[in-house]
Amino acid sequence: MSNVKALPLLETVVEPCCPPLTERPLTADEAERTAVMFKALGDPVRLRLFSAVASHEGGEACVCDISDVGVSQPTVSHHLKKLKEAGLLSSERRGTWVYYRVEPAVLAAMGQLLTKASAA
Amino acid sequence: MSNVKALPLLETVVEPCCPPLTERPLTADEAERTAVMFKALGDPVRLRLFSAVASHEGGEACVCDISDVGVSQPTVSHHLKKLKEAGLLSSERRGTWVYYRVEPAVLAAMGQLLTKASAA
Repeated sequence: MSNVKALPLLETVVEPCCPPLTERPLTADEAERTAVMFKALGDPVRLRLFSAVASHEGGEACVCDISDVGVSQPTVSHHLKKLKEAGLLSSERRGTWVYYRVEPAVLAAMGQLLTKASAA
Repeated sequence: MSNVKALPLLETVVEPCCPPLTERPLTADEAERTAVMFKALGDPVRLRLFSAVASHEGGEACVCDISDVGVSQPTVSHHLKKLKEAGLLSSERRGTWVYYRVEPAVLAAMGQLLTKASAA
């Protein structure tokens, strides 16, 4: 953990999984993977930051763009990192700032989970 | 808390709120209300139980129907109660058992949140 190197920013690959929740019970494995994403959005500040990034011009934002949620910039950075770890955001460093972008496929997959299956 | 009476089972009313997350940043209030629902699904066991209820025949289930997720029946009951408190399930007592049912409007509203807005 203390062995910090200049790692490239990893793109966390979270495979969107699973049919709509109304179709069949999730397996333990599916639930493990999917709960991570719901949990990441289960914090009010993180949810606001996520919607701030998602709705920002061009579909991306850096910490410098979204500082009006009433928490400090380090806290914003911390939450954005959490959202990235959950696979909801990807990031790219440009100069001083890291820009975050919503992963549309993941968002779509989560939306899909919550839609009603055609038949139970 | 110890004053247990035969209360009617309350239907928790959670107003589905908010436009798609990609449309505009959520307000603090919207985020507070919505994060509760995501948080409820942010636990693997709860998520499995939720999908078990959602996909069960007739769209409802009691604890007696869904005991194959590897946790005790009291734990199942506890999680179902949490899902109800978050507004994701409603419940009705029939004889010995409490039957849980997915709130379709809430599910649809959450799905809506995660869909892509037509324009940012």
